[in-house]
Amino acid sequence: MSNAPARRMADIAPFHVMALLARARELEAAGRSIIHMEIGEPDFPTAEPIITAGQQALAEGRTRYTPAAGLPELRQAISHHYQAQYGVEIPLQRILVTPGASGALQLATAVLVNPGDRVLLADPGYPCNRHFVRLVEGEAVGIPVGPETGYQLTAGLVEQYWEARTAAVLLASPSNPTGTVIPPKELAAILATVEARGGRVIMDEIYHGLVYGAPLQTALAHSDHAFVVNSFSKFYGMTGWRLGWLVAPEDHVGAAEKLAQNLFLAASTPAQHAALAAFTPEAQAIFEARRQEFQARRDFLLPALRELGFVIPVMPDGAFYLYADCGRFTDDSYNFALRLLDTAGVAITPGIDFGHHGANQHVRFAYTNAIPQLAEGVERLRRAL
Amino acid sequence: MSNAPARRMADIAPFHVMALLARARELEAAGRSIIHMEIGEPDFPTAEPIITAGQQALAEGRTRYTPAAGLPELRQAISHHYQAQYGVEIPLQRILVTPGASGALQLATAVLVNPGDRVLLADPGYPCNRHFVRLVEGEAVGIPVGPETGYQLTAGLVEQYWEARTAAVLLASPSNPTGTVIPPKELAAILATVEARGGRVIMDEIYHGLVYGAPLQTALAHSDHAFVVNSFSKFYGMTGWRLGWLVAPEDHVGAAEKLAQNLFLAASTPAQHAALAAFTPEAQAIFEARRQEFQARRDFLLPALRELGFVIPVMPDGAFYLYADCGRFTDDSYNFALRLLDTAGVAITPGIDFGHHGANQHVRFAYTNAIPQLAEGVERLRRAL
Repeated sequence: MSNAPARRMADIAPFHVMALLARARELEAAGRSIIHMEIGEPDFPTAEPIITAGQQALAEGRTRYTPAAGLPELRQAISHHYQAQYGVEIPLQRILVTPGASGALQLATAVLVNPGDRVLLADPGYPCNRHFVRLVEGEAVGIPVGPETGYQLTAGLVEQYWEARTAAVLLASPSNPTGTVIPPKELAAILATVEARGGRVIMDEIYHGLVYGAPLQTALAHSDHAFVVNSFSKFYGMTGWRLGWLVAPEDHVGAAEKLAQNLFLAASTPAQHAALAAFTPEAQAIFEARRQEFQARRDFLLPALRELGFVIPVMPDGAFYLYADCGRFTDDSYNFALRLLDTAGVAITPGIDFGHHGANQHVRFAYTNAIPQLAEGVERLRRAL
Repeated sequence: MSNAPARRMADIAPFHVMALLARARELEAAGRSIIHMEIGEPDFPTAEPIITAGQQALAEGRTRYTPAAGLPELRQAISHHYQAQYGVEIPLQRILVTPGASGALQLATAVLVNPGDRVLLADPGYPCNRHFVRLVEGEAVGIPVGPETGYQLTAGLVEQYWEARTAAVLLASPSNPTGTVIPPKELAAILATVEARGGRVIMDEIYHGLVYGAPLQTALAHSDHAFVVNSFSKFYGMTGWRLGWLVAPEDHVGAAEKLAQNLFLAASTPAQHAALAAFTPEAQAIFEARRQEFQARRDFLLPALRELGFVIPVMPDGAFYLYADCGRFTDDSYNFALRLLDTAGVAITPGIDFGHHGANQHVRFAYTNAIPQLAEGVERLRRAL
C-alpha cells in the first residue's frame, strides 16, 4: 500500500500560524492572557440585519439547493452593487455565487490554468493563491515585491517576468498581508500588459470596501476579460458563512458554471438568503461604522509599531493588516512570533506564511481587535523587545 | 488573448438534467403542471430540531470561522455515530468536516491522485466523481456494470481492470443513480483486493441511513486505509446547508487537513452548529419516519414502472432512485426525457448524466415526491407511452 500522498501535497504548505494559535490556546487554557493580533477575520459579529435574514430563511425552510450559480436575486443584488459602487454594468449572467472567495479562486484557476502553465503573483501574498494553482498542476511564480512598489505587482514587473508559459497574473488589492492597494492607473496598465500578451488577470478584491482614503477601482472597470473574486467575509462580516462570488468574462462563464455544478453543487442556501440583507441601508450603515473603526485602529497601531522599531515603509490603505519588517529583532520570523507569544502574550503571524521573499524578516499584525487591546498588546511588546 | 478554457474543461460535462429543469420551469411558468421525479434531494424540509439549532447558533453570533477540520464537538458526534451505528471506533482526529460531500471527495482525490493516475469507478455512477479525478489530472476509468453485479463493482472486476497506473477505486453504496448496495462481504473483498495491490478505496457513503432492509456496513469496519465520504445532505436532510465529512486514514489525514485549510478554510459555521442537533433522539425519530416514507414510495413506484414497461432488474435497496432500462421506448435517453417532459409533464433524468455504459437506454426516477404525485406521474406516463 502506498503511504505517500500525491506529489502535489509536498508543495502545499500548512498555515504556520495554526501552530501558534494552538500554542496560544494552550496558554489561555493555563490562565495566561493573550492579545490576538494574528487573526484574519473581523472581530465584529455578523451584522444584525444579516443574522435576522438568516433566521428568517431558516424559519421559511429555505434549506434546499439553489442553482449552481446562486440565487438569481442575489446575483442581481451583486450586479446592482457594481453599478452603484463603481458605475460598472455587470450582467448577472457573469456573476457566480460561490462557497467563499476560496470557491471563486478555485473556479478561476481550474478554468484558466493548464498543467505546466505559470501564474505570476506577488510574494508576499495570500498563501492559498499559489496552492490553488498547484492543485491543478500549474506553477505559481512568486515575484518578489517590496515597499518600492507598495508590495504590489506593476506592469513593469509583469513584463519582466512574462514567459511563453505564463497564462495568468493573480493580483490582490487591498493585499493580504500588506494592506496595500494597487493605484487605478497601475491596475489598468497591468491589465493591458497581461491581455496584450494573451493572458488573463485573476483579481482578488475580497478586501474591497475596507479602504481608508485611497482611490480604489474594480478591475471590471478596466477590462471585460478579468476574473474578479470577491467575498461576503471581510467587509460584509460573514466569514463563517462561507460565501463569495466570481465575476467571469463572458467567454469563460459557461465553463466556470459547469465546474461549479460539479465541484460545489451550490453555495450555502441560508447564507445566500442572509446575504441579500447585506445590501440594505441598515447593513451598509453598520459596515461603514466598522470601516471607520478599522481606520481608527490602523491610525493608532501604525505609529505605535513604528515607535517600537518595526519598519512599515508604506502606508497600508486597506484591509486590516500591517506588514512589518522585524529585521531589527530577528532573522527567523516564526521563532520571533513564538517568542513574543510566550514572553509577551501577543500573537502575530510570521512572514513565512505569506511566501519566501523577506519572509523571515517580516510579521503581520492584524488589527481585528479593539484599540484598548491593541494598546495593551503594544505595551507588552514594548516590555518584551 | 486566449479564448479557450483549460483543456480539462472539455472533459467536464454539465448536468444535462439542468437543461431539462430549465425547460420544466418554463413550462411551469406557462401554467403547465410538472411532476418532478428528476430531483436528487429529499422533498422534506430540514428537520425542526436542526432548524432550531441553526437559528440558535445565529442568535448567539456563531458566525466566525471554525478550525479547518471542523468544530471538535461535531467531529466527536460523528465519531460517536460510527460507534453507535456500526460498532466502529474512529478517533475524531481522522474526521474532517467539509463543505458537503463534494468537499470531502475533492480532498480525497487531491490527496491520492497524481497526474496520469487511474481511478476505477462504476459506469453508471455519480458524474461528479470522475470530474474530481479529472480536475487533478488523473484519469477516471468507468467500468461498465449491469444488473448481474447489482450495478456495482466487484473484487473480480477490480482485479480485471487493475493496471500499474491504477491508484484508487471509487465506490458508492448505496449508489446514485441505481440505489443498489454493495453486500458487506463483497465490500470487504474489494477492499482487500485494492489494498493488496497498493491502492486505496474512496468510499462514498452519502446515502447511508437511507436503506430498506439490505445489510449495510461502512468500509471503515473492514479497513483502516479507506477514505470514507459522507454527508448531512441526504439522510439528515440538510442539502442546501452544504455540510459533509471525510474520514481519512491516519497516514493521510494530515495532508487532507492541510489541503482543507487551503481550499476551504472551513465548512459553514452555522451549519456545523445546526448539525449537532442531527444526532439528537428527536431528529433521529424524524429521519426514521422519513426513511420509512421513502421505502413506501419505492415499494409503490418500482412495480408501477415495471408495469409500464421499464425494466428494473435489481431491487434497489437504498437512496431514493430507480434506475430503469427504457430500451423498449428509446435509444436516446435525453430526447426521451425531453419528450416525456413536454408530452406527459413528467421530469426524469436521462442516463447520459451518469456515464456512457447503456446511458442512452436508461433513465433515473427519483422518488423525492409524495406518493399521490408519484401516482399522478405514473398515470401520465401510462397515457404518454
